Amino acid sequence: MHELTRELFVKNDSKIVMLVADGLGGLPLEPGGKTELETAQTPNLDALTKKGVLGASIPVLPGITPGSGPGHLGLFGYDPLKYVIGRGALEATGIGFELGKNDVAVRGNYCTLDSQGKITDRRAGRIATEESAPLAKVLAKVKVPGVEVFVEPVKEHRFVVVFRGDGLGGHVHDTDPQKTGVPPLDPLAADPASKKTADVAREFIRQARELLRDQPKASGLTLRGFAAKPALPSYEEVYGLRAAAIAVYPMYKGLARLVGMQIVGKAQTLEEQIGVLAENWNNYDFFFLHFKYTDSTGEDGAFQNKVKRIEELDAVIPRVTQLNPTVLIVTGDHSTPSLLKSHSWHPVPTLLYSACCRSDDCQTFGEREAVHGGLGQFEAKYLMLLALANAGRLAKYGA
Amino acid sequence: MHELTRELFVKNDSKIVMLVADGLGGLPLEPGGKTELETAQTPNLDALTKKGVLGASIPVLPGITPGSGPGHLGLFGYDPLKYVIGRGALEATGIGFELGKNDVAVRGNYCTLDSQGKITDRRAGRIATEESAPLAKVLAKVKVPGVEVFVEPVKEHRFVVVFRGDGLGGHVHDTDPQKTGVPPLDPLAADPASKKTADVAREFIRQARELLRDQPKASGLTLRGFAAKPALPSYEEVYGLRAAAIAVYPMYKGLARLVGMQIVGKAQTLEEQIGVLAENWNNYDFFFLHFKYTDSTGEDGAFQNKVKRIEELDAVIPRVTQLNPTVLIVTGDHSTPSLLKSHSWHPVPTLLYSACCRSDDCQTFGEREAVHGGLGQFEAKYLMLLALANAGRLAKYGA
Repeated sequence: MHELTRELFVKNDSKIVMLVADGLGGLPLEPGGKTELETAQTPNLDALTKKGVLGASIPVLPGITPGSGPGHLGLFGYDPLKYVIGRGALEATGIGFELGKNDVAVRGNYCTLDSQGKITDRRAGRIATEESAPLAKVLAKVKVPGVEVFVEPVKEHRFVVVFRGDGLGGHVHDTDPQKTGVPPLDPLAADPASKKTADVAREFIRQARELLRDQPKASGLTLRGFAAKPALPSYEEVYGLRAAAIAVYPMYKGLARLVGMQIVGKAQTLEEQIGVLAENWNNYDFFFLHFKYTDSTGEDGAFQNKVKRIEELDAVIPRVTQLNPTVLIVTGDHSTPSLLKSHSWHPVPTLLYSACCRSDDCQTFGEREAVHGGLGQFEAKYLMLLALANAGRLAKYGA
Repeated sequence: MHELTRELFVKNDSKIVMLVADGLGGLPLEPGGKTELETAQTPNLDALTKKGVLGASIPVLPGITPGSGPGHLGLFGYDPLKYVIGRGALEATGIGFELGKNDVAVRGNYCTLDSQGKITDRRAGRIATEESAPLAKVLAKVKVPGVEVFVEPVKEHRFVVVFRGDGLGGHVHDTDPQKTGVPPLDPLAADPASKKTADVAREFIRQARELLRDQPKASGLTLRGFAAKPALPSYEEVYGLRAAAIAVYPMYKGLARLVGMQIVGKAQTLEEQIGVLAENWNNYDFFFLHFKYTDSTGEDGAFQNKVKRIEELDAVIPRVTQLNPTVLIVTGDHSTPSLLKSHSWHPVPTLLYSACCRSDDCQTFGEREAVHGGLGQFEAKYLMLLALANAGRLAKYGA
């Protein structure tokens, strides 16, 4: 697909806004009832629906529930089955660590070891974050010649290690044996290019064991999900777009950074995000604006709160349309029905407005309407093609 | 796709029922008229439609009419363009011959030969089944050292040969020259691994010619469609499902067996099939229930009979829902419009019910409604993903 866009993209003065309401899609609480989005009073989104076109976005494949990584890669136009962000890289991304091309990121777990070095608790009793965070500073003392080592706290027993250096392959087997009563495994290279990484990890573990020896709650560690920075071509390369990301949470900034978007502003609220959008309007072609709370309320099973968050989103729409974007898209990276309290596979209602979008009969923005929309049901990875096309940024294919 | 399901499947206590009404989809007899399904009185399926979600299943690709093999492989989640059941294997499956991994199955045709061994009739005058069936017993006398030989009658001039032994590849060219006035071709291996099979076939043909020499109506034979048992991963492997098949006809039992389903019961009627379903409820996770007569009435061009068969199906639905399946799917492997008296490419109306299926606006189970359904138009191979998702049997993809 990017082979096509690389060949066809053209540049112009258009502006594309992709407003991602995380986990937007939902379910009714009772059969025959309304979803969160259908329940919400959304006069602005409904007005846009009448002028725009709806569709139902399938994040990965029918029935497949995506995590945030694959969910956003799809929206960004990167086939989420082809481009896989390794666990370690995603964890580093999630805490806002900016991965470079010489980095290998690894998820670490503190554990407890007995006198023979056998694991007694794989998660160190889920040690409290305030107790585990200082341990990252202790481990940061490890020195491996020729390699930079970063250790960052995450939460409870989890931390992130990043090895930075030349010739570090990303394929090393986990050292977590997935059971207690045995010692952690040796880090073994899964391919020849990762031999140096395995050696570095082994030395890191050796020194870390010394440093943790006297720690009462976390006397050992395991390493999992070794991953190099995923090789994603940038928005500039594949779409010819100068892209900006306006997100509050590190994970989404990180995902945007992986596809070459610039992180702009330091907004902490949706209102502030719209402010950042307006301030940067002239400097970019594409704006990814991420709204988290439609997902977190869904995860909490808080139907009414999710409804309110959707109404909050609706309320800022006029401030976006006032900027007169060429293409305005409102969608989600997946559904998070309050009923399920989790991400789900259900298609995501998606609204696209442009002056040439070919409107449909849809009157209100909702799951049931979206199914009848002019965009039909489509795999999320195609949304960027529609965005570019509606912005006049794709030339004709073939003569 | 199975790479994905192997990684993501989880086990739980859910029950999935897939009720396949063979050739379910149809056409109106006159423009503007109703299809068989739309004509039928289906109060139970309509009630389920109101709580469930509809869609239109595309068996292979738009415009492609499938046989029973690809039709069912799609429903079972095996890409019918990737997994091909060789002709010989399908013929053996169709007569209920249980193929093993050391088997090569071949379709045989009786023919007539002149004194010089040249074919005078490629189908032996479509010899009557009661005359050809005993010939299978005659041919079963063939002995090839180191190989077991099975010969089974099919119908008229057709029979099946199965060679069982070590090192038998499945790629041997047909011996039918597709014309008269020439002798049958020599069986030639199409790859080195099938040389032994070709030798075995040559010896089989030599002895068979001796045995048939004095048969007035069928003095020779040709062999076509050499095929090993297709290597299909099992439901247990790719979905983690203990699957049962409840079918009346050998072909469908055979297809189910190829994907590792257990054939349960000896039901001869739909009522009995539902009884078998209930009896085996606690022993399996997934039930494939095959109903043949929506197809055979369509093939006969008997519109009203097909309507009645659909109503017969509708009448047993309460006995299925009483079992409280987590996911209930009603679909077909393809359309068989009475108007065409044959299988067709038209999408198949498909109903899925679960407590989290995200219902749509559809009110009755029919072709026109299904087009507007919440599942949209989808390739049949994705149906199993939806079944697993709705049963809570697929973990999240990526973090």
